[in-house]
Amino acid sequence: MTVSPFDHPLLSGLLGDEEATRHFSVEADIAAMLTFERALAEAEAECGVIPHDTEAIVKALASFRPDTAKLRAGVARDGVVVPELVRQIRAAVGDPHGEFVHLGATSQDVVDTSLVLRLGRAIDHIGLLLGENIVRLTGLAEEFGGRALMGMTRMQPAIPITAADRIASWRAPLERHQQRLKEQSGRLLVVQFGGAAGTLDKLGDKAPAVRGALAARLGLGDAPQWHGQRDALAEFAGWLSLVTGSLGKFGQDVALMAQAGTDIRLSGGGGSSAMPHKQNPVKAETLVALARFNATQLAGMHQALVHEQERSGAAWTLEWLILPQMVVATAAALKLAAELVGQIESLGR
Amino acid sequence: MTVSPFDHPLLSGLLGDEEATRHFSVEADIAAMLTFERALAEAEAECGVIPHDTEAIVKALASFRPDTAKLRAGVARDGVVVPELVRQIRAAVGDPHGEFVHLGATSQDVVDTSLVLRLGRAIDHIGLLLGENIVRLTGLAEEFGGRALMGMTRMQPAIPITAADRIASWRAPLERHQQRLKEQSGRLLVVQFGGAAGTLDKLGDKAPAVRGALAARLGLGDAPQWHGQRDALAEFAGWLSLVTGSLGKFGQDVALMAQAGTDIRLSGGGGSSAMPHKQNPVKAETLVALARFNATQLAGMHQALVHEQERSGAAWTLEWLILPQMVVATAAALKLAAELVGQIESLGR
Amino acid sequence: MTVSPFDHPLLSGLLGDEEATRHFSVEADIAAMLTFERALAEAEAECGVIPHDTEAIVKALASFRPDTAKLRAGVARDGVVVPELVRQIRAAVGDPHGEFVHLGATSQDVVDTSLVLRLGRAIDHIGLLLGENIVRLTGLAEEFGGRALMGMTRMQPAIPITAADRIASWRAPLERHQQRLKEQSGRLLVVQFGGAAGTLDKLGDKAPAVRGALAARLGLGDAPQWHGQRDALAEFAGWLSLVTGSLGKFGQDVALMAQAGTDIRLSGGGGSSAMPHKQNPVKAETLVALARFNATQLAGMHQALVHEQERSGAAWTLEWLILPQMVVATAAALKLAAELVGQIESLGR
Amino acid sequence: MTVSPFDHPLLSGLLGDEEATRHFSVEADIAAMLTFERALAEAEAECGVIPHDTEAIVKALASFRPDTAKLRAGVARDGVVVPELVRQIRAAVGDPHGEFVHLGATSQDVVDTSLVLRLGRAIDHIGLLLGENIVRLTGLAEEFGGRALMGMTRMQPAIPITAADRIASWRAPLERHQQRLKEQSGRLLVVQFGGAAGTLDKLGDKAPAVRGALAARLGLGDAPQWHGQRDALAEFAGWLSLVTGSLGKFGQDVALMAQAGTDIRLSGGGGSSAMPHKQNPVKAETLVALARFNATQLAGMHQALVHEQERSGAAWTLEWLILPQMVVATAAALKLAAELVGQIESLGR
Repeated sequence: MTVSPFDHPLLSGLLGDEEATRHFSVEADIAAMLTFERALAEAEAECGVIPHDTEAIVKALASFRPDTAKLRAGVARDGVVVPELVRQIRAAVGDPHGEFVHLGATSQDVVDTSLVLRLGRAIDHIGLLLGENIVRLTGLAEEFGGRALMGMTRMQPAIPITAADRIASWRAPLERHQQRLKEQSGRLLVVQFGGAAGTLDKLGDKAPAVRGALAARLGLGDAPQWHGQRDALAEFAGWLSLVTGSLGKFGQDVALMAQAGTDIRLSGGGGSSAMPHKQNPVKAETLVALARFNATQLAGMHQALVHEQERSGAAWTLEWLILPQMVVATAAALKLAAELVGQIESLGR
Repeated sequence: MTVSPFDHPLLSGLLGDEEATRHFSVEADIAAMLTFERALAEAEAECGVIPHDTEAIVKALASFRPDTAKLRAGVARDGVVVPELVRQIRAAVGDPHGEFVHLGATSQDVVDTSLVLRLGRAIDHIGLLLGENIVRLTGLAEEFGGRALMGMTRMQPAIPITAADRIASWRAPLERHQQRLKEQSGRLLVVQFGGAAGTLDKLGDKAPAVRGALAARLGLGDAPQWHGQRDALAEFAGWLSLVTGSLGKFGQDVALMAQAGTDIRLSGGGGSSAMPHKQNPVKAETLVALARFNATQLAGMHQALVHEQERSGAAWTLEWLILPQMVVATAAALKLAAELVGQIESLGR
Repeated sequence: MTVSPFDHPLLSGLLGDEEATRHFSVEADIAAMLTFERALAEAEAECGVIPHDTEAIVKALASFRPDTAKLRAGVARDGVVVPELVRQIRAAVGDPHGEFVHLGATSQDVVDTSLVLRLGRAIDHIGLLLGENIVRLTGLAEEFGGRALMGMTRMQPAIPITAADRIASWRAPLERHQQRLKEQSGRLLVVQFGGAAGTLDKLGDKAPAVRGALAARLGLGDAPQWHGQRDALAEFAGWLSLVTGSLGKFGQDVALMAQAGTDIRLSGGGGSSAMPHKQNPVKAETLVALARFNATQLAGMHQALVHEQERSGAAWTLEWLILPQMVVATAAALKLAAELVGQIESLGR
Repeated sequence: MTVSPFDHPLLSGLLGDEEATRHFSVEADIAAMLTFERALAEAEAECGVIPHDTEAIVKALASFRPDTAKLRAGVARDGVVVPELVRQIRAAVGDPHGEFVHLGATSQDVVDTSLVLRLGRAIDHIGLLLGENIVRLTGLAEEFGGRALMGMTRMQPAIPITAADRIASWRAPLERHQQRLKEQSGRLLVVQFGGAAGTLDKLGDKAPAVRGALAARLGLGDAPQWHGQRDALAEFAGWLSLVTGSLGKFGQDVALMAQAGTDIRLSGGGGSSAMPHKQNPVKAETLVALARFNATQLAGMHQALVHEQERSGAAWTLEWLILPQMVVATAAALKLAAELVGQIESLGR
């Protein structure tokens, strides 16, 4: 059953992106959580917090298969999957090592770090798509850049420009987005590890070493806990919406040119059930829809910055409802935009 | 794979509502589309637009099973499922009746009417949940209404009030929401039928009769096409957000009382992976999250009011990305709120 | 000094509406507050709560001129103007009647009722503008309705329609908005009177009578206090955004026709500093901007539904930041739309 | 007359910031526009585009006083003040130099560059306020950091932490915001200069030199025109909302502590008209309101990224309606937050 088009078996053909979606499946989430628990056990063993022999934990995690019905009931009860998941893991590990699983950690450590691990992979994917768009737009400029276009201001003909001028307004923001992503990745791709209330109270003076070792094992940056400081996530959501916003401008421009009918020729437009002759600029319109979708969502991610005290169930849950969809919307938009560039058979005159 | 918590196998245990979700499954959508096509054929036969004998169409629709892979590819190409779906239906009906399927209709007629049919069922469900909340809050007032609470203004103790005073501030808006729903249902639950560009051009002077008969067969109101007029959907989205907003206030109040610790006693709070002693007011917090989610989404539904010309692919697609989630969020919030009332073991002193 | 274009000496020439703005001036707010205090004193005298002779109060209020510097400092300190305003009024009334001013009321009673009184006047104004638009669009249909237009779906030519078809898609939502306003006015235009925490604790069993008399004197409906129930305001904000959304569609359609250049001829388009030959469809574009502005704001009004306990300083202040601007944006859009209809010299072919 | 609290004579005492507001006055806007026109004339003279003698222009600009009634009418007609402003300036300069004013520029060059010049000054101011907050929070940690607080997760007591732990969650994001501002300033504080449609068509091969000289004279970075690429503005809006979001968390935490009553002692809380004994945490609540306000607005700035073709009147106007208010909201929040830190007489136990 599917409420969101991103999950929808049919609509995701247009609005989804399989690779990005994959990182937000239950399987990927649980796998990342298990990766966290394994790395934590190893980091704690390394630092002498738990016994050196983590083989029982590592082995149990490797073959662990959760009872998802109980996990679902756990979420309904606890608001978060981790308490029940950890219970199941500990049972799988068994005595005497089960008690060393998740030691000193809290649910948010697992959930947030799992998210960051998967955002890292989604970013790799999105970064590739972004680069592909830049390459394609560069190619478009090489092919058609010298042709004439009528510059349009306030939806009225202004003066002649070249196709290259307009293509530059599509490509230049994407290049800046590459720069922005580089700047903010260091803030985003860091471990979350704070324990019950952020103080790693159970680890005493070994806390910094464990956190550092955990981060290293996960390939993430090391940083103080940020459970109540959600600025890196909101900043990243803003970046996603900047990307889709720039692509939305591209889509809107293409749709307007397609309407005027003389400045652009597209292959493979969508058909109509009533008018078989039509060639609808479906991908272009969808870029506008995804831009407006992400712009809308962004407000919610910023509302979630008011994250009270040491952990806000309300603000945190709000992020879950929004951020994954923004990631997939962005990947889908980048995929569509690259395809749309490929559909441009002619631009300018 | 699941991007949205509403579709998520685990998270939907807390954030979803099965009954509401069911109406947004592919199966329900296609079933409603087939219902539309059958009713259209019957209405057109009744009005003498197509041959009286619709048995071949009715029978083929009854046993029709779509090729979903092709439907998915159709959405990717056309931006909408209908052209490919109609092609498959016509093939299933075969000659000579196949050509009478979908006659005079366009994709938007099918998609929008399918949505309205399913919104009607979702509204029935939501209406029941709303009533249940009113009943439970009335019961709460009967049980604890006479007890004392400290009235809190600007997060500071003000003067004593009764539990009944505060419960009234939770229940009274819900009663107004019942009234609002009644007022707007007549605008929302109407057929969409306009053909290629809204003029029912292929039906000539029989157009009004066909539309009326179609609406009657679908149990919907009859009204002129509204393909570019999305106010009833935006109004309904506003109603959904009014409901979740009122429940969010209830949730926030409960969470604040639970924090203070003396004014309320809740059963069955959520546990923590780090602190087994905790009783987190998970449902109350989730109500706040769902309220802020719907408030966020509402902006997008209103952006979609700028629906240019006779059909905007961009604005229309934006609705698909938002409205179903708002419906499910509302049903989930109502379900959680009713459960939360049931968890209140004591209120006031 | 002017941050908002609605207050801006130059930009309000395009984006503002003087009549609507007038209701949100300090002067209008204070005048409405004084009206409240006078009506309250008279209602309380009528019900025997304070001495029958209110002449001293009425007279002092009639000639009262506030010390605005102190009011400003009061807002900075108290978050609301009323404590300092009441102090000044009581001083102006003097002994022995000063103490009878504001008796049993609280700041929110004064601020919210002042708002409702002024919303009532703004609604009268907006209702007239809405009616004027319907009249003008009806005239437009009479003049040009029979001409041909190319129906445009998904930004591509579909099939021919008439100008009347498109004009209907602009006018019909406005007629529904009239109906909606009628439905919700009874919920919106009611007195707010609850005292310190909503219980009218100081008025004992005379509370209902005083509230009824107060409402009657103010020309408002009588209703239980709604200080923590903000649904009527959020609903009204939704109505405002529905209106501007419908006008935004009209503006977008006009701008697209003006771009195509053959379907519409407008008088009085805006000029350019670089291209004196241009005729920009400024009013049409501004309608789109105002639609997107109100759609954006609406999310904030719905966030404010999470109004905790008996009075939320945070949620209440958020409304102040948003609602007046939505009202003025709506009035401005209606004024612009009516002017834009008047600029249409030709429509269709 | 005042619709926005930021412009409101009374409410701006709480919600405004005079220094930030000053940069959005008509006077400041026109002064910056005149600065642009002067620098442009000088740059063009320097590059040999216009006669070397710019004294007549410089002198006329220095004493220029606009006819604001005509400017207002110009905005109403043209959607932008520049055509009429340039007309007045040229008349003031007189023959033969008048024609050299604004040569090769278009309205958007003037309006956007004026905005950037004033954003630069606002950023200086906001940067100072941000630094001041960091300093004050550091002082707070020094004074009370060692005291105990109960860590609160999901609005329930968790485990003890120190006041320093919580203060760190208020300060650390602000330090990251400093870093972010540094990163993005180079993208934001650049000249906009493109002429009619972005190609500086009237300047031929001297265009790059003129633009560089213009930027240098204005103290801005040199960059290709960005009239249709609004990402730097949307990014900056995101930064503003990150700042207010972090301060909103601080405000929410303080309000919650003030409610609990034992963990914090504040001086100078707000009074009530009904309950003189109250000490309302007005500044803390206002921080939450401003956070939610900016989060709401941000969606609109991102909607404006869909800026079609070479200049979108609709998307551009939408920015005007939103961005100045976000700047002032941020300055006001920073000012309030610094004051609120100063009001903390005791934190923790």
